[in-house]
Amino acid sequence: MDSIERLSALFERFPGIGPRQAGRFVQYLLRSSPTLRGELVDSVQGLASSVHQCPECFRYHSAENKVCSICANPARDQSILAVVATDADLAAIERSGTFRGRYFVLGGTISLANEKTTGLRLKELKKMIAERRDLAEIVLAFPANPEGDATSNKIRDEMTDFVNPSLKITNLGRGLSTGSELEYADPETLKSALANRK
Amino acid sequence: MDSIERLSALFERFPGIGPRQAGRFVQYLLRSSPTLRGELVDSVQGLASSVHQCPECFRYHSAENKVCSICANPARDQSILAVVATDADLAAIERSGTFRGRYFVLGGTISLANEKTTGLRLKELKKMIAERRDLAEIVLAFPANPEGDATSNKIRDEMTDFVNPSLKITNLGRGLSTGSELEYADPETLKSALANRK
Amino acid sequence: MDSIERLSALFERFPGIGPRQAGRFVQYLLRSSPTLRGELVDSVQGLASSVHQCPECFRYHSAENKVCSICANPARDQSILAVVATDADLAAIERSGTFRGRYFVLGGTISLANEKTTGLRLKELKKMIAERRDLAEIVLAFPANPEGDATSNKIRDEMTDFVNPSLKITNLGRGLSTGSELEYADPETLKSALANRK
Amino acid sequence: MDSIERLSALFERFPGIGPRQAGRFVQYLLRSSPTLRGELVDSVQGLASSVHQCPECFRYHSAENKVCSICANPARDQSILAVVATDADLAAIERSGTFRGRYFVLGGTISLANEKTTGLRLKELKKMIAERRDLAEIVLAFPANPEGDATSNKIRDEMTDFVNPSLKITNLGRGLSTGSELEYADPETLKSALANRK
Repeated sequence: MDSIERLSALFERFPGIGPRQAGRFVQYLLRSSPTLRGELVDSVQGLASSVHQCPECFRYHSAENKVCSICANPARDQSILAVVATDADLAAIERSGTFRGRYFVLGGTISLANEKTTGLRLKELKKMIAERRDLAEIVLAFPANPEGDATSNKIRDEMTDFVNPSLKITNLGRGLSTGSELEYADPETLKSALANRK
Repeated sequence: MDSIERLSALFERFPGIGPRQAGRFVQYLLRSSPTLRGELVDSVQGLASSVHQCPECFRYHSAENKVCSICANPARDQSILAVVATDADLAAIERSGTFRGRYFVLGGTISLANEKTTGLRLKELKKMIAERRDLAEIVLAFPANPEGDATSNKIRDEMTDFVNPSLKITNLGRGLSTGSELEYADPETLKSALANRK
Repeated sequence: MDSIERLSALFERFPGIGPRQAGRFVQYLLRSSPTLRGELVDSVQGLASSVHQCPECFRYHSAENKVCSICANPARDQSILAVVATDADLAAIERSGTFRGRYFVLGGTISLANEKTTGLRLKELKKMIAERRDLAEIVLAFPANPEGDATSNKIRDEMTDFVNPSLKITNLGRGLSTGSELEYADPETLKSALANRK
Repeated sequence: MDSIERLSALFERFPGIGPRQAGRFVQYLLRSSPTLRGELVDSVQGLASSVHQCPECFRYHSAENKVCSICANPARDQSILAVVATDADLAAIERSGTFRGRYFVLGGTISLANEKTTGLRLKELKKMIAERRDLAEIVLAFPANPEGDATSNKIRDEMTDFVNPSLKITNLGRGLSTGSELEYADPETLKSALANRK
């Protein structure tokens, strides 16, 4: 396998990239200046040295400090914790600009194929909850799909015997999302939209 | 214009049908048996004679009685009224199987292009609300889009000076709809999903 | 089944129409004026009386004469015959404005599921070819898909022992169609594009 | 801008990659092993040292020799040259397995926005043609779109006064491409399909 094929094979492992686009990435780099290729190399190498996982919420960040800027922010509400599947979901909630609490990145959702929880930081979540005496609510902020539901249920099960009964555990609200038309909405969504009317 | 073109032009006026599919409909009818074409003719002619609008909710139905089966059903909750844009939206809510109140079909939503309310049964809605002394809640069950929102706002405005202050006016709940992923959800939806968590 | 459901069920049998759009067609007719519904009824009824199949090419038309305007046109080249699957394919070739010969509508292509030729006018095609002594070329103008290819092959097989060996049988040319990019073209298309270069 | 943002910005410049997918690439690399990141760095760095442009056809390759394996292959037909826009188009023709001649990668097509030919190796093409006395045919193997046509026309214009009149210049054949249905084919394609029938 030559350099072109080897690099193409690596790009094929990138999420959502097929052989054709992988090949196009290589052609793009071949046509690029040595400077740009150098920047790419530096940035990839820099990830290991400058990016680390926050020991509190487990998201990746590159702040100087170990703890990330959200976890270190004293203005964030310490009494409410949103458990999210991925860094991207955390970023989406931050963009919406309404959540003022803190986060915990679980590292994924339960795969329905095998119901395995490998790679999910369930133990770390429990430990954090045990330590955070000021916590009043956990928001299970998972996608509204079977994997998200299974993950929610799993966490609720594990918490039952474990957490302070006064600790509230909530799920994100369901209903019509922006743009939904009633005619095409599924019965579950309409049910929630009716139940959550206000 | 010959018969083929004339029928094709009529089919082109059907919702969502372009010239190509209109032509295919004509070809389909040409290849069909005289019996099938006869049934189509009978059914279209039958609409006028056998289908009528319910004088209470304004949906089309073909029950013997003037009043439709939902409005005539004494088991339906008379204290709650869902105002919907179309018969199709009413049917979607019925399919979800959770709403036990009654309906009012407004006849559409406000067009944002001209903000006209022509064709919407706003006067009829007011009259019905004035007459229905047992009404405790109106659910504005419109699509979660700008037209639906404008229609909701219009109705709320018109009701302000008009209805009994104890009459509750609600909107369908917003939030994640089935299948929504946080990463792709718009900020408005995430805001609602957080606000409506439970 | 009431009139609304009966008409909806009839529309569901239209090509490409599902239950949802069928329901929307009925709603559209319910909201339409009696005049428009009357025109639709007249046009459907008119098909049987005013539209007939051309006895030469078998396409549907509504000219006064039995023979259609193309077959009756003495300016069309009698020595070349394009065999097409459907009236729509005939119309597409006419729109391209380059074919000056005559047509024969076969009535479909061979279904690969069962290889049945039921409904295809193979016998009529043979009869016409036997009668048209002035014919020099038959263009098999079928779609470039497995069904089209199977139909072409079938006709060529049937013609072997039958037609004058001087009668040329051709297929439509293959190659890059408008908008094709080489990178995404399949090998067969590139092979033809190279073979037919000029 | 931190390392995550800097790498994400670099990925956004990759062809077809938006900010969201760029972010997902970074997350993928963060979760990857140091070994995989190391391989990526090595491969990108390796491009400059191990990949070079063939001085004859200008495609990128990583053979030991300067001249690529196709140009160096004595079994390839020296009398026919396919001029292609990109390495990817060359690869597509090779995959089709029917072309036995040699290639010349022009480096793109004329942009219709500004009609500039910057970046296209027109001078190099002329030089090669002047030197290759054994050349009998040039196939202009460009995409079947306006840019491809403009590039073909440009090359034909430049060649007029220049090349041996016995040198044949051809374009790829046009017609139905695999899967095309007549009903949806554009008039140009049908015209070619009829003209190239055989």
